[in-house]
Amino acid sequence: MGVVVLKFGGTSVSSIEKIEKTAEQAIREKEQGHQVVIVVSAMGKSTDKLVQMAEQISKLPSKREMDMLLTTGEQITISLLAMALQAKGANAVSFTGFQAGIETERVHGNARILDIESERIRAALAENKIVVVAGFQGITHDGEITTLGRGGSDTTAVALAAELAALKCAICTDVDGVYTTDPRYVTGTIKLEQLTYDEMLELANLGAGVLHPRSVEYAKNFKIPLEVRLSHGETSGTMIEEVLDLENTKVVRGIAFEDGITRITIHWSRKEDMRVSKVFTELAKNNVDVDIIIQGITGLGHGNLSFTLKTAALLNALAVLEDKKGEIGYEQLESEQDLAKVSIVGSGMVSNPGVAARMFEALTENKVPIKMISTSEIKVSTVVPERDMVKAAQVLHDTFELEKA
Amino acid sequence: MGVVVLKFGGTSVSSIEKIEKTAEQAIREKEQGHQVVIVVSAMGKSTDKLVQMAEQISKLPSKREMDMLLTTGEQITISLLAMALQAKGANAVSFTGFQAGIETERVHGNARILDIESERIRAALAENKIVVVAGFQGITHDGEITTLGRGGSDTTAVALAAELAALKCAICTDVDGVYTTDPRYVTGTIKLEQLTYDEMLELANLGAGVLHPRSVEYAKNFKIPLEVRLSHGETSGTMIEEVLDLENTKVVRGIAFEDGITRITIHWSRKEDMRVSKVFTELAKNNVDVDIIIQGITGLGHGNLSFTLKTAALLNALAVLEDKKGEIGYEQLESEQDLAKVSIVGSGMVSNPGVAARMFEALTENKVPIKMISTSEIKVSTVVPERDMVKAAQVLHDTFELEKA
Repeated sequence: MGVVVLKFGGTSVSSIEKIEKTAEQAIREKEQGHQVVIVVSAMGKSTDKLVQMAEQISKLPSKREMDMLLTTGEQITISLLAMALQAKGANAVSFTGFQAGIETERVHGNARILDIESERIRAALAENKIVVVAGFQGITHDGEITTLGRGGSDTTAVALAAELAALKCAICTDVDGVYTTDPRYVTGTIKLEQLTYDEMLELANLGAGVLHPRSVEYAKNFKIPLEVRLSHGETSGTMIEEVLDLENTKVVRGIAFEDGITRITIHWSRKEDMRVSKVFTELAKNNVDVDIIIQGITGLGHGNLSFTLKTAALLNALAVLEDKKGEIGYEQLESEQDLAKVSIVGSGMVSNPGVAARMFEALTENKVPIKMISTSEIKVSTVVPERDMVKAAQVLHDTFELEKA
Repeated sequence: MGVVVLKFGGTSVSSIEKIEKTAEQAIREKEQGHQVVIVVSAMGKSTDKLVQMAEQISKLPSKREMDMLLTTGEQITISLLAMALQAKGANAVSFTGFQAGIETERVHGNARILDIESERIRAALAENKIVVVAGFQGITHDGEITTLGRGGSDTTAVALAAELAALKCAICTDVDGVYTTDPRYVTGTIKLEQLTYDEMLELANLGAGVLHPRSVEYAKNFKIPLEVRLSHGETSGTMIEEVLDLENTKVVRGIAFEDGITRITIHWSRKEDMRVSKVFTELAKNNVDVDIIIQGITGLGHGNLSFTLKTAALLNALAVLEDKKGEIGYEQLESEQDLAKVSIVGSGMVSNPGVAARMFEALTENKVPIKMISTSEIKVSTVVPERDMVKAAQVLHDTFELEKA
């Protein structure tokens, strides 16, 4: 017997019917002999409705008051879910963020959890209750209501699982697990039974954004087994945990891809003039996120720097770079849009040096031009033309035989 | 300079537009040099929507979880109102019941306020902020969210006014004050400038239920001047306070009336058998509220007891009385429906003994049969046929010349 934390997102509690199904799912888990904590988000689109009301009042509402407003969403869900559990004969109690003892730093809209005072939850579990906790929200030491930002309910669930030394934290969602790649675009994909935390972090943008990277990092730090699974049903999902039987595991576990990428290249006529750190300092100051970075110096003493960013951030980035041209000291600036990033991910890669070569070879054979390359211990990323993205993903899925379990 | 507490009910904050008007009203009050605390209810019909969701889940949802659910309504209003105040350039902050330090007993759905820890409110007022507080809600010593029941936001406002030693507590609503009687039925009504607490308690069912009796009692106990006034506008309303210049005040201040009344009469053949206390003990046990009570004993040694109650409670009352016939020991039971109560109210009545006589005379002259009479120091109530109710109110309004300011 141990604690299991289940997290249900907004789409899993978007109606009374779904709240009732969520209650049934929790009761099934309890009947397996576990102590059950459920973390829930606001119902479906209810947060959007609250945001729209705020926007009618102010273009830039205070973040403190936005937190005050938005935290009502989860409070509605927890009370209705507790009622549904009770109506089905279960003993249940709901807790807001402050009642659950989720103490955060005082940063409205994007607070980090500092501590969890779990006495009330432990007492309720000891009374055999199913405990329903509002995700996404916390309270500061001086009683201010905060929210945890994007992926906040996942973070609440994983943090509670860590605090309660839970057997696992199940993220219950509208997909039944993490796939080798996105089944909407590539044929032959299969659901992965297991992944390491690092692999999951690299694949985080797969599977309809199933898991927020922050919660995966949290789970990794506290060694909490994570499961990604379907909200309402009995099929098992994908387990994310540290220890994998690497001998029986493929070198490449999954393929991630992302469109809407632009590459910016900056040219300096003399490599001595390159103010590379200035480039990224200025971009960061203006909230431009940069992904892959490559720096080159030609034999003639010229210098160049290429980096990718989301195309949505391009205008902002160009404005910053042109504004700071003098300080950065560059000669010429060019950008290429309509690119995509395609990556292979797998923990076994570190001990299999030929993997990157096989990747490039497969792409080249299939006439996919490679614009940029970036590697880490468990990942190789390539930048390719956007129109070739899906083909590249399919070629790599086939090349590394991911369709075989 | 002092504190003013303003309370706005659900109809006064039922839309973004009305919330913005409420913000303007609060800013006007602040510009007069006051420290301003605003207490608000949930927006318009939003509470009803939450109740409907709960009813879909359970016929009898737990009161604790209902409190958890319903308190989100005011939390939405306070955040939006604080945003509206800030958008109009005012310094403002919102507080939930627990942040405002409103500690209640642990009775879900109908808790009483035990104490207010007003440090946070005082600190915010000292920082020149307009403080927006969620009405109707509180928190127990051990962190459970409670609601105050009907009229709860009025109670919050008056309790805060008492705690902060406010200059006044203004109940801002959709009527511009308390009238001599209900203007929808009687001609010649005028708005009263002043009333005593006791008069207001007697007139509490006038003016579309403007004030809940509990909040008036609270104001009386703590000597907080109450004002009933229009939410959005600059006209002054009706002041309710202890000291009145009685010399310049009419004996009769207002006329209250209420339909849907039934009289039950119980007959005993021997007055020795009358178990009067048993009657009311059993009715109270079954939540039947009784209003006017008259007990009579005839020369022949028979006994009878008449009392009024709301017709809606009749079936319940008859079932109780028939069930307990043996213990109460009565011979016969009869009831008369389609009655109404018409009352004259005024603090000056205590020193003007002829008032009741003038009332009965006027009704009799106008062929309104009087079924029952009940008097207090500041009120005379008569029970009359329902069809004569409005006529009786008009006759009395004319007789006591209430149309004259």
